[in-house]
Amino acid sequence: MEGSTAVGTQYVYDFSEGSADMRELLGGKGANVAEMTRILGAERVPAGFTITTEACVQYMRDGAEPDGLDAQVDQALARLEERAGKRLGDPDDPLLVSVRSGARESMPGMLDTVLNLGLNNDSVRGLARATGNERFAWDSYRRFVQMFGNVVRGVPGERIEEEIAGLKARRGVELDTDLRVEDLRELVTTFGSLYREQTGEDFPQEPREQLRQAIRAVFDSWNGERAVQYRRLNRIPDEWGTAVNVQQMVFGNKGETSGSGVAFSRDEVTGAAEPSGDFLVNAQGEDVVSGVRNTQELAELARVMPDAHAELLEILRTLERHYGDMQDTEFTIEDGRLYLLQTRSAKRPAQAAVRFAVDAVEEGLLDKAQAVATIDAASLEALLHPTFDPDVDYKVLSKGVAASPGAAKGEIVFRAGDAVAAAEEGREVIDIDLAEGTLRVGDTVLHAGDRIAINGTTGDVTVDEVPLIDPEMTEQFRTVLRWSDDLRRLGVRTNADTPGDARRARDFGAEGIGLCRTEHMFMAADRQPKMRAMIMAGTEEERRAALNKLLPHQQEDFEGLFEAMEGLPVTIRLLDPPLHEFLPHHHEVKQEVERARIEQADDLPELERTLERVSQLAETNPMLGTRGARLGILYPEIFEMQVVAVVRAARAVRERTGQAPHVEIMVPLIDYEQELEFLRGRIVAAAAREGAREGEDFTVGTMIELPRACFVADRIARHADFFSFGTNDLTQTALGFSRDDIEGKILAKYIDRRILDRSPFETIDRPGVGWLVRLAAWVGREARPDLKLGICGEHGGDPDSIQFFSDAGLDYVSCSPYRVPVARVAAAQAAIRAE
Amino acid sequence: MEGSTAVGTQYVYDFSEGSADMRELLGGKGANVAEMTRILGAERVPAGFTITTEACVQYMRDGAEPDGLDAQVDQALARLEERAGKRLGDPDDPLLVSVRSGARESMPGMLDTVLNLGLNNDSVRGLARATGNERFAWDSYRRFVQMFGNVVRGVPGERIEEEIAGLKARRGVELDTDLRVEDLRELVTTFGSLYREQTGEDFPQEPREQLRQAIRAVFDSWNGERAVQYRRLNRIPDEWGTAVNVQQMVFGNKGETSGSGVAFSRDEVTGAAEPSGDFLVNAQGEDVVSGVRNTQELAELARVMPDAHAELLEILRTLERHYGDMQDTEFTIEDGRLYLLQTRSAKRPAQAAVRFAVDAVEEGLLDKAQAVATIDAASLEALLHPTFDPDVDYKVLSKGVAASPGAAKGEIVFRAGDAVAAAEEGREVIDIDLAEGTLRVGDTVLHAGDRIAINGTTGDVTVDEVPLIDPEMTEQFRTVLRWSDDLRRLGVRTNADTPGDARRARDFGAEGIGLCRTEHMFMAADRQPKMRAMIMAGTEEERRAALNKLLPHQQEDFEGLFEAMEGLPVTIRLLDPPLHEFLPHHHEVKQEVERARIEQADDLPELERTLERVSQLAETNPMLGTRGARLGILYPEIFEMQVVAVVRAARAVRERTGQAPHVEIMVPLIDYEQELEFLRGRIVAAAAREGAREGEDFTVGTMIELPRACFVADRIARHADFFSFGTNDLTQTALGFSRDDIEGKILAKYIDRRILDRSPFETIDRPGVGWLVRLAAWVGREARPDLKLGICGEHGGDPDSIQFFSDAGLDYVSCSPYRVPVARVAAAQAAIRAE
Repeated sequence: MEGSTAVGTQYVYDFSEGSADMRELLGGKGANVAEMTRILGAERVPAGFTITTEACVQYMRDGAEPDGLDAQVDQALARLEERAGKRLGDPDDPLLVSVRSGARESMPGMLDTVLNLGLNNDSVRGLARATGNERFAWDSYRRFVQMFGNVVRGVPGERIEEEIAGLKARRGVELDTDLRVEDLRELVTTFGSLYREQTGEDFPQEPREQLRQAIRAVFDSWNGERAVQYRRLNRIPDEWGTAVNVQQMVFGNKGETSGSGVAFSRDEVTGAAEPSGDFLVNAQGEDVVSGVRNTQELAELARVMPDAHAELLEILRTLERHYGDMQDTEFTIEDGRLYLLQTRSAKRPAQAAVRFAVDAVEEGLLDKAQAVATIDAASLEALLHPTFDPDVDYKVLSKGVAASPGAAKGEIVFRAGDAVAAAEEGREVIDIDLAEGTLRVGDTVLHAGDRIAINGTTGDVTVDEVPLIDPEMTEQFRTVLRWSDDLRRLGVRTNADTPGDARRARDFGAEGIGLCRTEHMFMAADRQPKMRAMIMAGTEEERRAALNKLLPHQQEDFEGLFEAMEGLPVTIRLLDPPLHEFLPHHHEVKQEVERARIEQADDLPELERTLERVSQLAETNPMLGTRGARLGILYPEIFEMQVVAVVRAARAVRERTGQAPHVEIMVPLIDYEQELEFLRGRIVAAAAREGAREGEDFTVGTMIELPRACFVADRIARHADFFSFGTNDLTQTALGFSRDDIEGKILAKYIDRRILDRSPFETIDRPGVGWLVRLAAWVGREARPDLKLGICGEHGGDPDSIQFFSDAGLDYVSCSPYRVPVARVAAAQAAIRAE
Repeated sequence: MEGSTAVGTQYVYDFSEGSADMRELLGGKGANVAEMTRILGAERVPAGFTITTEACVQYMRDGAEPDGLDAQVDQALARLEERAGKRLGDPDDPLLVSVRSGARESMPGMLDTVLNLGLNNDSVRGLARATGNERFAWDSYRRFVQMFGNVVRGVPGERIEEEIAGLKARRGVELDTDLRVEDLRELVTTFGSLYREQTGEDFPQEPREQLRQAIRAVFDSWNGERAVQYRRLNRIPDEWGTAVNVQQMVFGNKGETSGSGVAFSRDEVTGAAEPSGDFLVNAQGEDVVSGVRNTQELAELARVMPDAHAELLEILRTLERHYGDMQDTEFTIEDGRLYLLQTRSAKRPAQAAVRFAVDAVEEGLLDKAQAVATIDAASLEALLHPTFDPDVDYKVLSKGVAASPGAAKGEIVFRAGDAVAAAEEGREVIDIDLAEGTLRVGDTVLHAGDRIAINGTTGDVTVDEVPLIDPEMTEQFRTVLRWSDDLRRLGVRTNADTPGDARRARDFGAEGIGLCRTEHMFMAADRQPKMRAMIMAGTEEERRAALNKLLPHQQEDFEGLFEAMEGLPVTIRLLDPPLHEFLPHHHEVKQEVERARIEQADDLPELERTLERVSQLAETNPMLGTRGARLGILYPEIFEMQVVAVVRAARAVRERTGQAPHVEIMVPLIDYEQELEFLRGRIVAAAAREGAREGEDFTVGTMIELPRACFVADRIARHADFFSFGTNDLTQTALGFSRDDIEGKILAKYIDRRILDRSPFETIDRPGVGWLVRLAAWVGREARPDLKLGICGEHGGDPDSIQFFSDAGLDYVSCSPYRVPVARVAAAQAAIRAE
């Protein structure tokens, strides 16, 4: 393009010339409106033209509009005027246009829309005469002066608002709509003065000059700070540029045969094959959206304007067929004539998405893969969590953020630190009296221990005992999941530590357990004392004795899991956390020691021993400390006890049920292949003493969760039957981010400053963590082509991350039970996109 | 080799056929003795032959000796017998041989040497007759039976020792040498029974069978557990195999014209051009090494056996010239005839290494590069640290490990946790009474606060006030450093936070400061309260006010540094540690709050506020928490204050001295390029407000110390004039190793288990951390070819790591002042090796 000359380059395309596949040249909006023009015909879409992204790129390079652009705009305007039968700036019946920016992808920081361009001191009167509505004409003019000044020339919005507020105060009215024609005229004058004050120029009266400035402002906005920052963050090249769309205005406020509205091609809540939406007679689109007037349901349009309604339904069917997805449109009816201004895929709740997908296949609109691809996989979790019984009313005590689907109940606990931290971050802290242990919301006073319930779907908080109900999985949802299973390549397992979780996950379609965290089994109240005795042991013999007491518990737990999984794979992770996590905190024990000294209590020597041990085990950075494989190397007998429990449990279940469990023993936190070599030796030997054989009765593998391990994954693979990527810890180490410490203190600020768009613990960080995963997968498989690869970090339930794992060639993802259906659909979508 | 047939393959080489460059085929020892035979002639080196590594590889593959090997050994034996004029197993005057393993590199776990092979019940009498020394003959035989049984056939060493000890007890003697001929005969019989009991076979009387078994045992030892483990650890392929060396025995114990000794080609302590060493008349090499008898100095040999002495000196010169390095040899004189058994480069202390290098160049033996290459760079640090005044005697209280050169003094502090941890690891803990705060060593009782001094060079601990002296840097040392500077490509800077350190480092040749840790400036007693006030600030305004009070201190510190460095580059790292490091611990403040509550003290509100802030700032994993760039993004005003201090200090120094400081401002802990983009903007703006311009008055760069940063180094480089690799933190994150927590608790165990051979914080972990460094260097320079690359972790002073950094294309290393000379020499050696 560098070498192309301006002469001969087409910078301006009429809507009738473009199409959806010209997105790069015409931008998203330009290509979209052109496509709609192509489908529906020029009479349904207000005419106009698009100035190409190429013109913008030239402008940025040369600091001036490219040669020929002005002439091409003149020609396009002439064609538009001819088609409209009106002229820009005509003092009798002026053509008015809107100017909108439109890059290849929509992004923040680009120029806002300018409406009603073409009005000036003369044509406003013509518009009044032509429409017979003087107030409409002057209101349109004052809006134009206001928008143009603010958007195109940077007149501060506050100043404009001040003037409007001042005038309303003087007139003693509350709403803009209460202002009279005289008031609007006065505002136009006032805004003109403000414009002159801010820009040093008079407000441009010449419509062609208005248009020239608006186009230039769109170009300039591409290099605005916010747009540049957004592009950096989203790796969008500066060289894309933005297009400019100029479109004839149509008006839904010309009387009782005019109107504006939004329409969905299917029911926007249920997804049923019944269009839904809202409209207003004698109104502009802005009025429908702003909620100033009560809208009517779309079905009412059949009564009010039956012809337009019938046409609209036909158009919705056409658009849906064309785009292969449920549509969300904006329309305007001017003097009984229906215009479509915009169409896009409809955002929809999970149940609607599922219903549309199934119906679309039944109707022959989409094939199964296309249908599954229309679903927002992440939203599906909402269909699985218990929810407030919708038939029960409750009193809303307070409203929080609608953060997570489903509902939860629990007791109030006060923690000073959390509240203070929240206040420091500028978050609103509810009225808490820590000394009293009470919380005041309006007239209600709550105490620590009081029960509240939170509706995560709405953000409602209540003290009422609202019953929760388990949702039914609809037949349609099951159908979508069945199709997904046929389509996906990636296996889906679950992270589960209890038989209950395991069974729930199987109901949701889990094909195995990808991560059983055995340490959770030591946290139960009846086991903690035994675990502590093990940790307090002074010699290996004492430790072995204490471990023997834990053994039956572990075995029992494993039996429960194996039975629940009925021969599906179960990955058992050996003990991972540092031992001090099972002991009380240092200062707590110290206080107890001091108390015991003063009271000369009998337990003083034992407490002192505990204090010593706690001091010994204390760590500055537990995340990077003595845990996982390192524990196993210091105390191999711990891992050996766990292996014995696994082997005995597997045998017991096999004898009881006749079905052999499929056991995978996993060593966490490997850095060096020698660590795994040593531990694998101990594991295999311990199992052999119980009569179990590696390869036949179990396999041995490792978590890959440290950057170094990824670099030497080929060497590690020589001792591993499988890898499971622990992307939580891999993210913590690769980014140097302690999740506990960072998510509360840093993340909000980073999102605010556009350094991040979401937590790296939610969606995998591709450039860093993602590369480590790819690297380990490659070299691991190079050393051992049959190496099984999975991922058991929380990313395993995140659709964007699942796409990545699928592309990286992993065999399965493992996620929390409620995410299993999400993962099945996301895995199918990843497979579809890869084809 | 797979396809070669046994027929025609030469498996056996006489020493006279080999040379140093046949190491792969003949192993290190075989190639070495062949080379010595080549240089000195066959009459100086006892004759023999080498069985190739190829024979070993075939043996391992087929589980049997390759066809033809036996016949080739027979032929080689025949040649040896002819040359020696003796026959193996001759009952009158037998040829005796030694059998030694010898892989390409020496490694543990390989077969020990078997001496005196060829003796049996007949030939022992012949040896007695031929040497006229019956005791010698029977002692040789019992040693052979003992060694062969133990080494070749696995007769337990304890059983052998038990028998010897039992006999000595019955005879009432203490030393082996007190045993009489009858006793030695009895031992041969006893060992024969033991051999039969353990192996089920009679001790082989046929010498050729003895040899066959010994050769097979060498081959088998290649697959011994210890050897295999060592190869895994050191990435040595199993396919190397080991060679076997069979050499005629010579005896230094044949009377007053025989002897054995070790000789260095130069003085082994000072490096002066005067050979040194020890010898014994009428003795075998074993006696010299074991210290059973008092040896004589080498110079004495000139008096005792002047011819042999003169020959030895000539040979030492020849060997030194041939190998181009100071030599450490073993020799034997048999009946006045001198034999060389071994030669290798001499291990030598730093001063000897320096002296040899300088002398060798003066003598024309080596050029400067060759001379510098002979020095063990790491040892040079010993020449720089203050040491105990050698003229002062002191009483040694206790002896520890000679861990580090130089000496140190200080007060005793007791920490319960440390002592307990040491005891847990099985280390010997000195007799500490924590309640009393005392420590007992023999009769001496020490109290907390008592001063002790430690001589790191010897491990001596004393309570005497031994004066320390600063060593003089010798002219020879300066010469070596000057040559190194001419040879090296890599720059050498220092890590320094004070003008004193900066000046010392410049004396040692530092070319700039690569890391100034500004947080150290806030730790001084007069600054801590101001720092705390800054941290306690509730608003940005309060924080700015507190920062303004710190500003003059920072400026003063920077002025001192800039003056000391006189225009050399100074890299200032902005605040790195988390803020809670500057506050007291949570439980301390909590206790104070409780005290103040009870006493109803005035400072209660302030203490409560401190407690709140401490709770807020507390972190689970501070290493991965709110520090470095993250602090700067939360509180840009902190970094801005530091930048203002830098800029003002630079201006003040320029005005005062007329020389402009060369300032590099460094942002720590970058993960995302957006972090650096934002902070760079704030830094440049703050400097601009002070009239300083980026590029002219300072540059801006970043630490690369997180794995993610290495993967996106190209993006980060767009905002950075330089990178400095923070390999300490990069090691912590890449390995998931918290240095504080791991080095004491895990490292010893890991070295024990041969998972590691040293700390990854001492020498860079090449497979993991090293790859991250390479990656960042490559892609960083790809994005910005003029990017300056340095490293400021502790690895910057480690010769092995410096070699890596030089190869990786870095511009400079930065290390502690005392390591600067080490780094200069190591950098030169890296450049030499790269040529």
